[in-house]
Amino acid sequence: MKPRAPLPLTAFTLPAKYYTDPGLHQREVDLFFRRMWVCVGRFQELPERGSFIARHLAGDSLFIVRTSAPGEPESVKAFHNLCRHRGTQLCRDDHGHFNGSIQCEYHAWTYDLDGRLIGAPHMEGSPHFRKEDYPLLSARAGVWEGFVYVCLDESGPTLEQQLADLPLKFRPWHMGDLRRGDGVTYDIAANWKLVIQNFSECLHCPNLHPALNKLSHYMSGENEPLRPTYMGGRMDLNEGVATMSMDGTCPRAMLPGLSAADQRRVYYYALFPNLLISAHPDYVMTHTLYPMGHDRTRLVCEWHFHPEELARPGFTLADVREFWDMTNRQDWHVCELAQRGISSSAYRPGPYSSREDLLYAFDRFIVAALGD
Amino acid sequence: MKPRAPLPLTAFTLPAKYYTDPGLHQREVDLFFRRMWVCVGRFQELPERGSFIARHLAGDSLFIVRTSAPGEPESVKAFHNLCRHRGTQLCRDDHGHFNGSIQCEYHAWTYDLDGRLIGAPHMEGSPHFRKEDYPLLSARAGVWEGFVYVCLDESGPTLEQQLADLPLKFRPWHMGDLRRGDGVTYDIAANWKLVIQNFSECLHCPNLHPALNKLSHYMSGENEPLRPTYMGGRMDLNEGVATMSMDGTCPRAMLPGLSAADQRRVYYYALFPNLLISAHPDYVMTHTLYPMGHDRTRLVCEWHFHPEELARPGFTLADVREFWDMTNRQDWHVCELAQRGISSSAYRPGPYSSREDLLYAFDRFIVAALGD
Amino acid sequence: MKPRAPLPLTAFTLPAKYYTDPGLHQREVDLFFRRMWVCVGRFQELPERGSFIARHLAGDSLFIVRTSAPGEPESVKAFHNLCRHRGTQLCRDDHGHFNGSIQCEYHAWTYDLDGRLIGAPHMEGSPHFRKEDYPLLSARAGVWEGFVYVCLDESGPTLEQQLADLPLKFRPWHMGDLRRGDGVTYDIAANWKLVIQNFSECLHCPNLHPALNKLSHYMSGENEPLRPTYMGGRMDLNEGVATMSMDGTCPRAMLPGLSAADQRRVYYYALFPNLLISAHPDYVMTHTLYPMGHDRTRLVCEWHFHPEELARPGFTLADVREFWDMTNRQDWHVCELAQRGISSSAYRPGPYSSREDLLYAFDRFIVAALGD
Repeated sequence: MKPRAPLPLTAFTLPAKYYTDPGLHQREVDLFFRRMWVCVGRFQELPERGSFIARHLAGDSLFIVRTSAPGEPESVKAFHNLCRHRGTQLCRDDHGHFNGSIQCEYHAWTYDLDGRLIGAPHMEGSPHFRKEDYPLLSARAGVWEGFVYVCLDESGPTLEQQLADLPLKFRPWHMGDLRRGDGVTYDIAANWKLVIQNFSECLHCPNLHPALNKLSHYMSGENEPLRPTYMGGRMDLNEGVATMSMDGTCPRAMLPGLSAADQRRVYYYALFPNLLISAHPDYVMTHTLYPMGHDRTRLVCEWHFHPEELARPGFTLADVREFWDMTNRQDWHVCELAQRGISSSAYRPGPYSSREDLLYAFDRFIVAALGD
Repeated sequence: MKPRAPLPLTAFTLPAKYYTDPGLHQREVDLFFRRMWVCVGRFQELPERGSFIARHLAGDSLFIVRTSAPGEPESVKAFHNLCRHRGTQLCRDDHGHFNGSIQCEYHAWTYDLDGRLIGAPHMEGSPHFRKEDYPLLSARAGVWEGFVYVCLDESGPTLEQQLADLPLKFRPWHMGDLRRGDGVTYDIAANWKLVIQNFSECLHCPNLHPALNKLSHYMSGENEPLRPTYMGGRMDLNEGVATMSMDGTCPRAMLPGLSAADQRRVYYYALFPNLLISAHPDYVMTHTLYPMGHDRTRLVCEWHFHPEELARPGFTLADVREFWDMTNRQDWHVCELAQRGISSSAYRPGPYSSREDLLYAFDRFIVAALGD
Repeated sequence: MKPRAPLPLTAFTLPAKYYTDPGLHQREVDLFFRRMWVCVGRFQELPERGSFIARHLAGDSLFIVRTSAPGEPESVKAFHNLCRHRGTQLCRDDHGHFNGSIQCEYHAWTYDLDGRLIGAPHMEGSPHFRKEDYPLLSARAGVWEGFVYVCLDESGPTLEQQLADLPLKFRPWHMGDLRRGDGVTYDIAANWKLVIQNFSECLHCPNLHPALNKLSHYMSGENEPLRPTYMGGRMDLNEGVATMSMDGTCPRAMLPGLSAADQRRVYYYALFPNLLISAHPDYVMTHTLYPMGHDRTRLVCEWHFHPEELARPGFTLADVREFWDMTNRQDWHVCELAQRGISSSAYRPGPYSSREDLLYAFDRFIVAALGD
């Protein structure tokens, strides 16, 4: 273990307004959730051409439709969930299937899967009306290693630019091949940044997560410096521990292709703005965050396994789910206590320790992006 | 069927703010629900002198009390629901009966049915206090064909002026004689104007209301041009259809006095700001709207029949109720989808077809009244 | 009974904004609940050194911890409920016990019962960090006759100064010796001032509280003039009535040391901003108010008895609890009706009678304190 460099004297937590001011939160949403690429699900949720998922993002409703048939290269399109006629929402459910076209329930305006308007009853009486002027309003969409991303900003960096060297870094886990085994959705009464900060230090582990601390020591491992679009590091599994699970044993095979070193580590990475990846030797856990207000965050936690393991008779993930659901709840509990304490008129920023270096760097990133 | 004139090139739906801005909504409430006469119920809800109904209107609570005995000419008074002493609400329930006077529960200040203060315990110690200075605060009230109206604006047009030629137009149905058979209250997560717009076109009928479209073809009938205080039109019953009901048959007698032509039609009129009348050959359906916010509307739907039919052994309205409750729910569903879609940051006004001429006219009326 | 002096011609109730404007309410909270001493409970709720109660006050969370052992002079400390490290709330429950120190769940920062930081893991890596710079944030705290008070303003008058001559006035009841027999918490949809006004006149008693009026005549007794920090008066028990209870009999001994005159009276005092004391011959009732918004008040009503009576076999308080719970509910009901009526756009101030002299004085106190 290397000792970490001391933080500057000014390494204090953020002022309260970054957690309590709805106007500032809206600016964050605009900056981080409207201009950046945001993870909204997994490609496996779209089994066929015409399958869709609908998501609330930054106050808007969008749906993402698969435009490629099985066997073809992965292809998705994202559209704003409203008809160009009178604004009616097109998808009521959060997932489903379009049979070749997308029809509005209200007046039957109809679009193809590429968003082109192909039917508009009774508009022929309007001589200047042209269908090509009223396609569905689209957003950018893409897929990386099975993660479906959308971007509400039509200009700006590409998904590849935002991901930078992450594809290389995570190649050994072949996450695109993995399949979701299970998931839990949590509603957390805390600001989204508190969840990312909680994820980004293990100083709290001895006190809050005694079970976790027995599997992987909080002083083990090493962090990367903060990168422009992500931050993270790794921790080591204790001797005799095979993976993060209730008892540290692992009833599953290691993921194929991992080095011996990576089989002894867990990598925890926060991909800004909303995807947290925890890459274990035998599975990948993801947390996908959706801010619902300055003091509320919806979080989808999912565990992804190799399809051969999932298909193996006797496969189980109960050990993983039980361990992480317990740990998650401990984390959300303190995130909520922090949200409440920071909301007090008496709150003032407190000092970070050198084990919280990523949090301080993340705070600087937020403040700089907001131009404060 | 006459082809309709094409709409102007600028015939687009309203900008989002007309559905999403609470401040603009408050201006609409002030203009349309505080200055205009508003329908708040039926005179039959007031069976005796002293009977009252209480209503929330434009943020205020009012009660309407019947001041005429049975057999006398219809007479009602409307009062703000608060005592002149310390502001205490006088009516807790939404209907009831005053035994000759109205007494505040708190300190027993007492008013007669005309609103005059007739008792104020211990005020005799205040030498300048005069009971005549503290009557109940009144609103204008009136009755037309059994509909009880109130107006929060003490000046402005009379009820007769607002109704214009509607009394003549609706005379054949003798609505004042009809009696409520049943009713349903709906809470709709949509702006009040979306409900009126939905009511004012049948372009959506083939797709959304297949059962309705079998009874009355959406291209049948004709609209009047928009009038200063109402708009509407008529549709024809299909051949072999007797009325709007589940199967198109009619187990009731036609309303007395209707012409042969009117026995083959349904008249749909929106009386601004909040009464929608659907006059059928054998009954009248009403929708009374109460905006509860920019995105919420409470709606009372009622079916009114001839008292001789209501009294007839074997009378049923189940066919009517079932048909319209189904149709209502289809309508509120798309109104709610429209409210949600219009609330998206991506929404932009869409083009109206010539079958939506009344909606475009209604929108112009709203915009002009707001002075935008 | 002396006739009361007539009130000035301008003795009208307050304008609506004092009950309906959230901004004005915030100013009241700042003036009356942040600058004044506020009652937050009874010392008996803290049985041991280390016992704590947590309270929400003026938007903040505080906890009060007992720092004296049994037998030692009463001593309490009040702290803001948040850790100096990352702002995490320290107490989750509204009462409990600290075993000698106060530890944050998140990163184990630890404080002694005087609020000194005594443990801060891994901060040794920060060379300029000094534990003495990060004590818990304290508020002033004190105890009078068993009532625990806190004050969020570090300067300003002492508790003794705020209480003025009340300790002398209430000495005969020895309230510090009394113990809570029972209590009820009410959530009232009304402004806190309406509750104090309701408490401060009995003009409403004949109409609203017929049972109470049989025990103690609403015209009996006498009020003191309003004092800078309290107001109140007394009422006489009717002949044959022993105390305020369901039937006016008293199955308990009188409080020791009361004069014969005080055994025939009930004293009703409102100690600004939030403690209402009703001193009966055999028990003391308290109402402790917590404003939760401009139109919501949480109120804790408790009945306090002499410990010898409480310990006596066959002791009962059912008669007291039943009588006052019934009376309380009648009062909160009209407070809520007043809140709703005053919220009407039609409300205008009404005239006070000479039996409402304390209310008028209280209103002037509020207006003057706000500088309006």
